[in-house]
Amino acid sequence: MLVHELTTPALVVDARTLDSNIATMSGVRPGSRLRPHVKAFKSTAMARHVSIEGGHRSFCCATLREMEGMADAGLGEDLLLANETLDRERLGALVRRGDARVTVAVDSPETIAVAAASGAEVLIDVDVGLPRCGCEPEDAAALAELARSQGVPVRGVMGYEGHAVALADRTERHRSVQESMQLLRAAAAEVGADITSAGGTGTFDMHPDTDEVQAGSYLLMDTHYDRLGLPFTMALWLESTVVSVSPKGWFVLDCGLKSLGMDHGDPAVEGMQVFFCSDEHTTVLPGEGSATPSVGDRVRVLPAHVDPTVAYHSTLHVADGEDVLESWPVDLRGW
Amino acid sequence: MLVHELTTPALVVDARTLDSNIATMSGVRPGSRLRPHVKAFKSTAMARHVSIEGGHRSFCCATLREMEGMADAGLGEDLLLANETLDRERLGALVRRGDARVTVAVDSPETIAVAAASGAEVLIDVDVGLPRCGCEPEDAAALAELARSQGVPVRGVMGYEGHAVALADRTERHRSVQESMQLLRAAAAEVGADITSAGGTGTFDMHPDTDEVQAGSYLLMDTHYDRLGLPFTMALWLESTVVSVSPKGWFVLDCGLKSLGMDHGDPAVEGMQVFFCSDEHTTVLPGEGSATPSVGDRVRVLPAHVDPTVAYHSTLHVADGEDVLESWPVDLRGW
Repeated sequence: MLVHELTTPALVVDARTLDSNIATMSGVRPGSRLRPHVKAFKSTAMARHVSIEGGHRSFCCATLREMEGMADAGLGEDLLLANETLDRERLGALVRRGDARVTVAVDSPETIAVAAASGAEVLIDVDVGLPRCGCEPEDAAALAELARSQGVPVRGVMGYEGHAVALADRTERHRSVQESMQLLRAAAAEVGADITSAGGTGTFDMHPDTDEVQAGSYLLMDTHYDRLGLPFTMALWLESTVVSVSPKGWFVLDCGLKSLGMDHGDPAVEGMQVFFCSDEHTTVLPGEGSATPSVGDRVRVLPAHVDPTVAYHSTLHVADGEDVLESWPVDLRGW
Repeated sequence: MLVHELTTPALVVDARTLDSNIATMSGVRPGSRLRPHVKAFKSTAMARHVSIEGGHRSFCCATLREMEGMADAGLGEDLLLANETLDRERLGALVRRGDARVTVAVDSPETIAVAAASGAEVLIDVDVGLPRCGCEPEDAAALAELARSQGVPVRGVMGYEGHAVALADRTERHRSVQESMQLLRAAAAEVGADITSAGGTGTFDMHPDTDEVQAGSYLLMDTHYDRLGLPFTMALWLESTVVSVSPKGWFVLDCGLKSLGMDHGDPAVEGMQVFFCSDEHTTVLPGEGSATPSVGDRVRVLPAHVDPTVAYHSTLHVADGEDVLESWPVDLRGW
């Protein structure tokens, strides 16, 4: 199969760029120093590839579905649900299978009770500045004590500095990470933690004292992360077909709001200007000096945000040049 | 099954509101005067329900996958692909099955060649003001002649006034529709058309002279359409669970960028203020006078844009109060 034979819209991964991103990351954060986040690609085939090529054996998940699917695929050696869950039945069933090490983030008595009932290990999730999940740093020790009093093993702490990862200025980003990690380390000392877990693609090299970094976007990248000047290259594009060309100057692709995560804005087309996206269309204006393509031509669209883009697709096609080497099912979708 | 027993996030449809929306629409546009657009719900079970309750037997699709799935479900009596396609193999295979009437929009010699090769009937797609697909109105007759010269039956014209459907001011919206339909009727007269097909939920009652209106969002609605003062009520919500409550005042739901189409902005929560969405989280601030919910509570989230929201989900749960009556597979996803 060749790339131009794929039914469009189709997500295509450049195999060499992906492997280069894996190598760059594992050079800086080898083995268990990185916990790759499967939420960015939602594919057990890709997780297996990352594990083999990058040498990472512990993974990070955002949903119970991702945890279950990773265990199903034999990739359950050390799975962290870096998120709170209230679903004690499914968490308990996953633990009882016995083929996965299951750790879950907790930040409240309620989520600790779920971990206790299900037999999972925990990380105490600490609010380090992102207004989302996580307990107050000063409450971490009491929560750890509560967990231990219920027989729940506390492996350590996590604190995601999501407010810092996309700061455009590297110095400012670094300072923000340092502030957050000061809070996390203080909480870790109180908790008595084996593991500190934090970070993301934008801050992967700012965590000398953090045991493990949770990053996933570095593998495929997107136009949003591409602006940060990171040593990772965009490996993903949305292969699309020109379905209409207007004499008024625009042309229309067969991809749109149902094949692209839109929270970071419009996707990009090299040398062209994206006008707007509809459900199954993207209207594009040729850039200055660029020729308008013809009906039937293929155009590569670069997603603005990788995670919610991949979640719309059932397949990631892996290509070397024009050759489609493999087609990885996106088998971790849903909840 | 009760609604609060569903694994979250879960899309839930209020059965009575849905049926009220169906009745309101079929009262104004009965039978073939409406061609319900399946892109808004992507479910053959729901299409069948709309057909039975609303009395509509012709449907509109945005993708070949939707066309194929509707034919598979025995709903192929009169299917329009209201979109251009270059995929002559799949379109041809669909026509050759013989269990569906297949009509496709064309706006170029290339798309007419695809229709000719595959044996489909066509509507000439006319640009009536939305910068997307469609030929210039003055080129419609020549394209129709080209199609007929290749043995392609030309059923008529279509022209989607997408630039008008969401105009907030009804008078302005109406004037814009009238301008567009003047262009479409002129093209129809030149083409010699049996069918004029246009419109959407926002303009459904502004088409006295259009043979069929293409509307889908009226069935489930969203906060974007809800602002227009249409006689349709929001029938869809995203059932979510509170996974974290911060002493700083916010709380966090287990839904986010992968369960909500985001191109129209953040979703809404009644009486609350949505702060921001992450991949699998929505951070919410309690509204003035509203109590902060507790960890484990259920919260209903109202999507801003129905079509790209449904496309993230595998199931639409249909409920009457707390009772889940049916769970309809969202079986028309992908391409």
